[in-house]
Amino acid sequence: MKALEDHAKPTIIETTDAIVRVTRTTICGTDLHILRGDLPSCKPGRILGHEGVGVIDSVGSGVNAFKAGDRVLISCVSACGRCEFCRKGMFSHCTTGGWILGNTIDGTQAEFVRTPHADTSLYPIPEGTDEEALVMLSDILPTGFECGVLNGKVQPGSTVAIVGAGPIGLAALLTAQFYSPGEIIMIDLDDNRLEVAKRFGATQTINSGDGKAVEALMKLTDNRGVDTAIEAVGIPATFELCQQLVAAGGVIANIGVHGLPVTLHLESLWDRNISITTRLVDTFCTPMLLNVLKAGKIDPKLLITHRFKLTDILEAYETFENAARTKALKVIIEA
Amino acid sequence: MKALEDHAKPTIIETTDAIVRVTRTTICGTDLHILRGDLPSCKPGRILGHEGVGVIDSVGSGVNAFKAGDRVLISCVSACGRCEFCRKGMFSHCTTGGWILGNTIDGTQAEFVRTPHADTSLYPIPEGTDEEALVMLSDILPTGFECGVLNGKVQPGSTVAIVGAGPIGLAALLTAQFYSPGEIIMIDLDDNRLEVAKRFGATQTINSGDGKAVEALMKLTDNRGVDTAIEAVGIPATFELCQQLVAAGGVIANIGVHGLPVTLHLESLWDRNISITTRLVDTFCTPMLLNVLKAGKIDPKLLITHRFKLTDILEAYETFENAARTKALKVIIEA
Amino acid sequence: MKALEDHAKPTIIETTDAIVRVTRTTICGTDLHILRGDLPSCKPGRILGHEGVGVIDSVGSGVNAFKAGDRVLISCVSACGRCEFCRKGMFSHCTTGGWILGNTIDGTQAEFVRTPHADTSLYPIPEGTDEEALVMLSDILPTGFECGVLNGKVQPGSTVAIVGAGPIGLAALLTAQFYSPGEIIMIDLDDNRLEVAKRFGATQTINSGDGKAVEALMKLTDNRGVDTAIEAVGIPATFELCQQLVAAGGVIANIGVHGLPVTLHLESLWDRNISITTRLVDTFCTPMLLNVLKAGKIDPKLLITHRFKLTDILEAYETFENAARTKALKVIIEA
Amino acid sequence: MKALEDHAKPTIIETTDAIVRVTRTTICGTDLHILRGDLPSCKPGRILGHEGVGVIDSVGSGVNAFKAGDRVLISCVSACGRCEFCRKGMFSHCTTGGWILGNTIDGTQAEFVRTPHADTSLYPIPEGTDEEALVMLSDILPTGFECGVLNGKVQPGSTVAIVGAGPIGLAALLTAQFYSPGEIIMIDLDDNRLEVAKRFGATQTINSGDGKAVEALMKLTDNRGVDTAIEAVGIPATFELCQQLVAAGGVIANIGVHGLPVTLHLESLWDRNISITTRLVDTFCTPMLLNVLKAGKIDPKLLITHRFKLTDILEAYETFENAARTKALKVIIEA
Repeated sequence: MKALEDHAKPTIIETTDAIVRVTRTTICGTDLHILRGDLPSCKPGRILGHEGVGVIDSVGSGVNAFKAGDRVLISCVSACGRCEFCRKGMFSHCTTGGWILGNTIDGTQAEFVRTPHADTSLYPIPEGTDEEALVMLSDILPTGFECGVLNGKVQPGSTVAIVGAGPIGLAALLTAQFYSPGEIIMIDLDDNRLEVAKRFGATQTINSGDGKAVEALMKLTDNRGVDTAIEAVGIPATFELCQQLVAAGGVIANIGVHGLPVTLHLESLWDRNISITTRLVDTFCTPMLLNVLKAGKIDPKLLITHRFKLTDILEAYETFENAARTKALKVIIEA
Repeated sequence: MKALEDHAKPTIIETTDAIVRVTRTTICGTDLHILRGDLPSCKPGRILGHEGVGVIDSVGSGVNAFKAGDRVLISCVSACGRCEFCRKGMFSHCTTGGWILGNTIDGTQAEFVRTPHADTSLYPIPEGTDEEALVMLSDILPTGFECGVLNGKVQPGSTVAIVGAGPIGLAALLTAQFYSPGEIIMIDLDDNRLEVAKRFGATQTINSGDGKAVEALMKLTDNRGVDTAIEAVGIPATFELCQQLVAAGGVIANIGVHGLPVTLHLESLWDRNISITTRLVDTFCTPMLLNVLKAGKIDPKLLITHRFKLTDILEAYETFENAARTKALKVIIEA
Repeated sequence: MKALEDHAKPTIIETTDAIVRVTRTTICGTDLHILRGDLPSCKPGRILGHEGVGVIDSVGSGVNAFKAGDRVLISCVSACGRCEFCRKGMFSHCTTGGWILGNTIDGTQAEFVRTPHADTSLYPIPEGTDEEALVMLSDILPTGFECGVLNGKVQPGSTVAIVGAGPIGLAALLTAQFYSPGEIIMIDLDDNRLEVAKRFGATQTINSGDGKAVEALMKLTDNRGVDTAIEAVGIPATFELCQQLVAAGGVIANIGVHGLPVTLHLESLWDRNISITTRLVDTFCTPMLLNVLKAGKIDPKLLITHRFKLTDILEAYETFENAARTKALKVIIEA
Repeated sequence: MKALEDHAKPTIIETTDAIVRVTRTTICGTDLHILRGDLPSCKPGRILGHEGVGVIDSVGSGVNAFKAGDRVLISCVSACGRCEFCRKGMFSHCTTGGWILGNTIDGTQAEFVRTPHADTSLYPIPEGTDEEALVMLSDILPTGFECGVLNGKVQPGSTVAIVGAGPIGLAALLTAQFYSPGEIIMIDLDDNRLEVAKRFGATQTINSGDGKAVEALMKLTDNRGVDTAIEAVGIPATFELCQQLVAAGGVIANIGVHGLPVTLHLESLWDRNISITTRLVDTFCTPMLLNVLKAGKIDPKLLITHRFKLTDILEAYETFENAARTKALKVIIEA
């Protein structure tokens, strides 16, 4: 059950912490997974939220890169920069960080948040940047890019299918275009979202409601299938679909948060030279995304459909949860 | 059912064919799969066998690289060198080749074999090379290397588990050592094969018969799991085991020929940043293997346990099929 | 000295040859190098030209993929698909091919041309494709892409400088955008070409005529230099400039045909973690370019400024050689 | 001029510093470069030395991974783990670190040393490790491996030439064998060092004193040249030699510290598809080296020829500088 509660303002615990006054945050599909009980790591009473921008309120003695008053982007992943995993750029599995905000520690859907490993988990906001756009760089764009596009090895001229046209599928769609694929085929059950996908750059769309998505896609690809199939839903049926769409030599890049096992058809895939990848976002691409944003190569605000005050956060959840009716993608929550 | 039959000597069909007099061949685990009916592509009456060395008997008018009398290594994969897949080095999926020998066309377990795309599917045998050793370069070593070691991204100092110490698992073990991993942990049910694995370079072995292989491996790896888990059996239980062994950021490289689907635990793997790969061998590494063989970096003959005459091939199958009893790895069949 | 001469129509020599009636060709900067005597491999009397489209006139008995009447794109590189180099995708160094057209054998600036290794060196022209655009896929776009963009590791958000805004530099500029770099800074002495570069997608331009290109670029990049410096001229001064522009960790990708040695400042670069690459185009990317062309991700005709009949080829050369005055980029020569 | 001087014990300056009591250090070829004045970054009065092992004496308040009494390996590169360069693993160019020890700050050839960014620049010494062997992991083995072997893309079965059989060339030789190349050809002027190289695993040696090294190497490689040429000297003549040895498609990996520019023969290399790389070691491979050392895949102590007390360091320098006479490779200096 979700509730708006009064909490004490967080305080510095480790010397490398910062306290950030959150000015804008948002809701993620993962927050809904938590509320449904899919993520046992997150206990009742936790303040949710792992995305946002804000202003530094105070910093611990070990923080060198920021000071009170600095405007910052909060990454959904906290990274110490020093452990075995951070040393190889796999920040998602930082031994004292990773995705902990709004999961194992209190998150950003609040007036203030304590951010661990501040030097390596916050980013200074460049002068003149639109802060609403930046909220999309906390999680959804890095996740779509790293877990979907990079893992999926999207290439100039290649063929991509994205299964699921929700916010994360659309984030993959926006960032896939960094690599100029020849075709991006978007598959969903909701015609409205497929319409949005067209506006965002999908070259083809398939409504899979008739159970004939595979036939439709094979027709579009001369029976070859796709070089990259991006799973952006998180249920067995959509992962199954990806296995049927992927061409020999291709990749299935999983983004979805799965609560159940799936069936893997090794009896037909063992000799197809494919890869399947999973990933919790490392957010190593955040500096790159800041560059492409500055260069005008992407418009993250396309993803924002609604805006709420923090005090109306329950209404924001209501809107976000009922996306089929409200046509919500990402909602901005302002403090 | 298998049988030794009298066949007409094959003749040139395409100008790019060669007829090879087979001097030595062998039996592959895949041949047993075929005899069990697991590979519907292979029809009754087919001459099996996709490995071997021999002497060119005749060549079609379009063959430039070989002439009658040349001694050659026969690759298990036929590649035209011209199609979309060959152009990107994915010879296994050549549109007019791939693994067809002893599958969709007659194979090498015979006195003569027709080899399509001869220029790009045969290799000249360097002066003075041991031809028995070369039989191991037709399939088993390239498969262990490409599907297991390369796909598995074995690296200096990394930790590898190989599930299955049969001939193909042992081929992965031999070729994994090209990259100097820190640990190679071999897992099997047969103590004899684990003993062989020790001699071939395994740093640790685990007999999984007690159902406690995961605990044993976690103890050996400080609870980290392995960077690379190579599946070299081809049944659901061993693929399941690989999912439990692989560390965050690691790879499961499937070599096994699977006849059944498997369960993929995305509910626990979605955020573990792993890859799963499948592959039919491309044999693109054959020139490299000829180089390391010449340099003495590998001894393929370690894999050879028995020798038979072609006329005794049924006995060879009997020996190969009952490996637990006969301790057979690879058997050489001489014409 | 160049001349328009009467030659006998070429005939099939090898079974893998095709004779192509050339319908459109063009002139390359390399042709000018040849006329100046910079390429000793090319002997007097040679018909120049290694680019073009045409119609198959006849094929040798070993050609399977094409027949008389087929419309084809002629690659500047002939590749057997079978030798050691072709097997690893390094077609430029094919032991019986590579760049031989209009170099060591007669080329495409003629009514007919003999194309060796036809199956692997010609591409079928997809129905409805603009054949003028395709002429740009014989050499200039693959060269700009492979030698400049791919070797230069252009990445989303990265910073690129291209030294030389001639046709090849502009081809690099067009294809660099496949990867959505954050900045593409074009450097040349000719304001007209820099103006063209702006229209083609350069984010910044620098006229290096004042000898202050380095200062100007460092100002544009916060003194970091560029991740990728593409040399698209071929003289010591421009290669020297690239060494001054490249950031620590960056790449200098050489495209230019050099006639002289250059000075490499290892005394300042030894600890800068840079790479320098050279490359004769392999044209392995031709299928990809056909895909992006079909997808409308590139407009190769932007490069075409003039059109001539084959009988007016001397005038075409005159126009192409005096580009500063004529503003010529690529010229189309129609049969 | 070098001198043994009395200095005050260093003290913590930044909270992330540690003071280490040095128990073993060594002398690097770079120290000789400094003494000759080749590295202007290093000013007179500086304590030299960037290698060694020791015991933590004290740590700043921001150091979490170490405490007084811990035995540690000192990396030659200090890395903050937080800057733009560290985030991408390019620790050598850390904006507040990099190679500073014994260069821009006092180094390890002393009883105590201040090590900045201690958490990310020191490594705990595993129980039971031979500390002399570990001194080889501060600089020489990571440098040989990263700058020579990794940059040089040494592969199973490939052909490698190492120009220079001094300590750093031998370190490249030892670590190249992690990848099982087919040939490692060592080139030097000193027969003694070539003899050592043979013992360390070189498959061929060439004394280049007769000016015929190119001919000799081409004979050994069937006129192909080598896939990887590692420059391990740092003078124009040896870099020139590498350009003559490298095969089409190959890499020249520079390790040498160069004081002078070199001539790059682009007039013959522009179409040879080669790469040239430079690098200051990032020491990102230190954890891997600790793994291979533990696994017994390398014996770093092969490099150690002499041992001295710290008070005899001038004699150690004398021995190291006159290697042709003393046959010194690496010298251990014990406190």
